[in-house]
Amino acid sequence: MTATAGFVVIGDEILTGKVQDTNSHSLAQVLFTRGVRLSRIEVIPDVIDEIAATVKRASSAYTHVFTSGGIGPTHDDMTYEGIARAFGRKLVLHEPTVEKMRAHYSLKPEMMNEARLRMALLPEGCEIWETDGLWVPLVVVENVHVLPGVPMLFKGMLEAAAHRFVGVPLTRELVYTMGKEGDIAAPLAALAAAHPDIAIGSYPRDGGDHKVMISLEGPDARAVADLAARVADAIGGFRR
Amino acid sequence: MTATAGFVVIGDEILTGKVQDTNSHSLAQVLFTRGVRLSRIEVIPDVIDEIAATVKRASSAYTHVFTSGGIGPTHDDMTYEGIARAFGRKLVLHEPTVEKMRAHYSLKPEMMNEARLRMALLPEGCEIWETDGLWVPLVVVENVHVLPGVPMLFKGMLEAAAHRFVGVPLTRELVYTMGKEGDIAAPLAALAAAHPDIAIGSYPRDGGDHKVMISLEGPDARAVADLAARVADAIGGFRR
Repeated sequence: MTATAGFVVIGDEILTGKVQDTNSHSLAQVLFTRGVRLSRIEVIPDVIDEIAATVKRASSAYTHVFTSGGIGPTHDDMTYEGIARAFGRKLVLHEPTVEKMRAHYSLKPEMMNEARLRMALLPEGCEIWETDGLWVPLVVVENVHVLPGVPMLFKGMLEAAAHRFVGVPLTRELVYTMGKEGDIAAPLAALAAAHPDIAIGSYPRDGGDHKVMISLEGPDARAVADLAARVADAIGGFRR
Repeated sequence: MTATAGFVVIGDEILTGKVQDTNSHSLAQVLFTRGVRLSRIEVIPDVIDEIAATVKRASSAYTHVFTSGGIGPTHDDMTYEGIARAFGRKLVLHEPTVEKMRAHYSLKPEMMNEARLRMALLPEGCEIWETDGLWVPLVVVENVHVLPGVPMLFKGMLEAAAHRFVGVPLTRELVYTMGKEGDIAAPLAALAAAHPDIAIGSYPRDGGDHKVMISLEGPDARAVADLAARVADAIGGFRR
């Protein structure tokens, strides 16, 4: 069974166009490397019931679920509450996280206060994964992994935890061509049909030395490389 | 009733981390300007049944649905077929689009062929919106609007059609502060609770002259500006 994943991005700021989501791209790249198939990304607003329903559905549908955003101290941070509701859990103050926060803030001008304590109000019975050098917990509830929205933190905590996700890594080969998609479509379709184990994608773009990038992805490195060579031959393409 | 929208991004290339989606951000910005509330973004693979199910669900849930990607001539372009299936329609060759393609390609070295004709194989009974200077149709099936994945085309066709989407535009004011989220959370929460018609969001980031950006969005421009001034006062923030 292939390990699959769903990603739930929680944030009005994405949906209203104030901020461009980059965490999806970071997660997609890490999961591809780990051999875990990212099956769906959903961006939803900061609304507890929507978080609960979306996370619950994703949790049933995929091996792993990741969320980003909504775990800060302000009134619009709803993620822990949404996830608690998804699984019928209470929010409880997580003492080890409070201790880590206290130690962190004792070295800073900021004071502990009620708003900051909200960041330690976690779904009861959750697991905590620690990240070196950070007090922020990576909260795990069943198969759901809760990450912050700030891109640098998201990426750092994800990369620190990446080794825990094990799938079947695919080999990827890329072929480039100055040919047009409409002209290479027929030979590409024939090769794709003859090799159902290898996913062939065709992406038109203005790449300077190419007009289309073709990707080949499959579990057998040798087979992927062989097919990439045949694709390059068939469409007058090149590899780097 | 607020006009709402769902966006379905169709593309393995996003889910496997080869390409970063930027169309979501373009759409979010245009819809905000038009006063249409973007409620959900979903990124799904190039699989006909997934396209059909996701588009069908979104079509029932939102006033407008937009899709991007999967309308090219290659074997991995499945969007028209997915949308036809969503609404129980057949794919039929759309003669006016074929004519526009013929005219376009008659001025180019490329030839019409079967692969290119796939781009005119559209869900029966669809409506076509034309974009000046482009042969590519903006296909409309019920409340679903089918746009290309190539960002420049996506943006151009969307902007040409934007005037057709009419909602209640919100006024946005931004307040910036060097304060930390944990310290401004309490006054912000109080002001947010007292003004339920204005959405207040708080976004930590490394902005040079600010550590947090606060956004205020609401239908009454005067009320939003007044509240922005009060927020700035309460948290020691500034506006640009």
